[in-house]
Amino acid sequence: MSRQYWSKPLFDLVPYTPGEQPKIVDLIKLNTNENPYPPTPAIKHILAEFPIDHLKRYPDPESSDLKNCLAQYHNINSDNVFIGNGSDEVLAHVFMAFFRQENPILMPDISYSFYTVYCNLYDIKYQLQPLKDDFSISLEDYAQPNGGIIFANPNAPTGRALSLSQIEALLKRNSDSLVVVDEAYVDFGAQSAIELTQRYDNCLVIQTLSKSRSLAAQRIGFAIGNPELIEGLERVKNSFNSYPLSSVSQKMAVAAYQDENYFQETVTKVINTRTWTQAELEALDFEVIPSKTNFLFVSHKTLDAAKIMDSLRAKGIIVRHFSKPKIDKYLRISIGTDDQMERLIAALKTL
Amino acid sequence: MSRQYWSKPLFDLVPYTPGEQPKIVDLIKLNTNENPYPPTPAIKHILAEFPIDHLKRYPDPESSDLKNCLAQYHNINSDNVFIGNGSDEVLAHVFMAFFRQENPILMPDISYSFYTVYCNLYDIKYQLQPLKDDFSISLEDYAQPNGGIIFANPNAPTGRALSLSQIEALLKRNSDSLVVVDEAYVDFGAQSAIELTQRYDNCLVIQTLSKSRSLAAQRIGFAIGNPELIEGLERVKNSFNSYPLSSVSQKMAVAAYQDENYFQETVTKVINTRTWTQAELEALDFEVIPSKTNFLFVSHKTLDAAKIMDSLRAKGIIVRHFSKPKIDKYLRISIGTDDQMERLIAALKTL
Repeated sequence: MSRQYWSKPLFDLVPYTPGEQPKIVDLIKLNTNENPYPPTPAIKHILAEFPIDHLKRYPDPESSDLKNCLAQYHNINSDNVFIGNGSDEVLAHVFMAFFRQENPILMPDISYSFYTVYCNLYDIKYQLQPLKDDFSISLEDYAQPNGGIIFANPNAPTGRALSLSQIEALLKRNSDSLVVVDEAYVDFGAQSAIELTQRYDNCLVIQTLSKSRSLAAQRIGFAIGNPELIEGLERVKNSFNSYPLSSVSQKMAVAAYQDENYFQETVTKVINTRTWTQAELEALDFEVIPSKTNFLFVSHKTLDAAKIMDSLRAKGIIVRHFSKPKIDKYLRISIGTDDQMERLIAALKTL
Repeated sequence: MSRQYWSKPLFDLVPYTPGEQPKIVDLIKLNTNENPYPPTPAIKHILAEFPIDHLKRYPDPESSDLKNCLAQYHNINSDNVFIGNGSDEVLAHVFMAFFRQENPILMPDISYSFYTVYCNLYDIKYQLQPLKDDFSISLEDYAQPNGGIIFANPNAPTGRALSLSQIEALLKRNSDSLVVVDEAYVDFGAQSAIELTQRYDNCLVIQTLSKSRSLAAQRIGFAIGNPELIEGLERVKNSFNSYPLSSVSQKMAVAAYQDENYFQETVTKVINTRTWTQAELEALDFEVIPSKTNFLFVSHKTLDAAKIMDSLRAKGIIVRHFSKPKIDKYLRISIGTDDQMERLIAALKTL
């Protein structure tokens, strides 16, 4: 009975549940929004030629090459960049560094479900703001005293995005608190708020290499904001784990940003496949929320969402369903290759 | 002035300072206790043959293959194993999960300096217990009410180790609190307490692949203890970052444990070089604390430690000095190759 050694707050922690990572190889996996395409072929050479003698040494704790690469790519300075072991770690540090405030932080009731888990972990007060019926964010709800604001843009699992001018209005109205824009899916059609970080001290943008850069396996995420926000994150990071990113991951990440053509090409393919899939789904009586991401959030006019998920699974296709009020009629379907989506549509036609 | 967005506790955080990772290639780097030898040559093939198509997918969040491998290697069950992004992350989760108690935790005044940083990060009360004059741990000081106990064995930066029977006595005397044994250096000559985790519910052992397994670049650490301690750590991990270890690191780690001959061979070489270096240093009027690690903690009878460090640096050799009471007369010198240590001794002879 060694739960007696647990800290008291540990008993109340309710961890995040990630999407299933099945070990069956043949499945069509449309449940965790991974990219259907591999990362740039340049990665092959990086791995093959990596000097294994360097593995005995600690990695660069600052990920300096990657910071410089991101700074150049986004036309900012390297002291505007913070690097972490996936955007989940970056987000955890953001909550620890900035959101332990007297007022509750505000976030949409439907968004990335890890946000409330961090609040629980760090004992942070929060208040959920309901999305409108069409799943758009109701901006007027954020005009109240708060300890910070966070949302995903485009939002997940809805796929809807706010415009830059809407975000700018939010930043202006909340100059006393930090506004965190989680842009995990931004490359698939939304506008990034990175340019706003250069004009608004209260704007922090989070991105990941797990989606549009096809490097989910390597756990690389980053934050962009003004140098004092970055300094705050570095302070938490250096009180937690000085070396969050392996040497191999640092090199892979730089390579992913150096092959712009490949990036544009694969993102365009995903967007085109999304457009095709949306039309096919609508023809099958699905309501499809307009998406700026690499997934579609859909609801069938008559069939039950959980039952569709089970039927698809029986045919070797996995999609995600959230048994949560307001969205339990919906399925989130990641965009795969054309072939995979054709097989999805064919499977749906048999239901 | 965006420090206004910092959480209040952030202003009081004092981060850990890791040893310098200089970017100059020619230096003899004896300051961060890295292994002088590369990891098993099998890693070369793992990298060259890694299917880059798998990089688009999230890694196994449980690191199941690595857990099974460690369970087999240490003759325990896989539910006795917790995996993290370096032992620093594992330690951070340990402090969060178990050390937020009403009584202060106890630790040696001279030990891995990250321990007090975690206390600061998670607002944990602690009490430092002074080492004896010969730098051994004074076990009687730990016979008092406490919220937990942590120490490195062998201890760093001293190099001294407790015996298993001493640790067992400590576990018996403290059955109401958790005793964490940080075994980062254990493979270089001390006895592991892993077998004690099978008989004492209050024993948790931490190890790393950064030292004896030559994989510092990849950030891989683990904890071994009874299933309910592991469950507590998983709960924190899954409230922080579901996927701490990259796919590439998981594979490398397994390979490191599958090449036992290479491991034994390189560890033996380090120990032999340590024996030679100790004798040479003693002949040069250094006092050398008996070491069970891959470093030596040494003090010269007449020369000032910080000055020796500076002179060595001028000759391209980096060692570590801690400007801390009680140990500021000492240098910590990592064990390099025979050639590197011969050059160190030659440099010292010129002082």
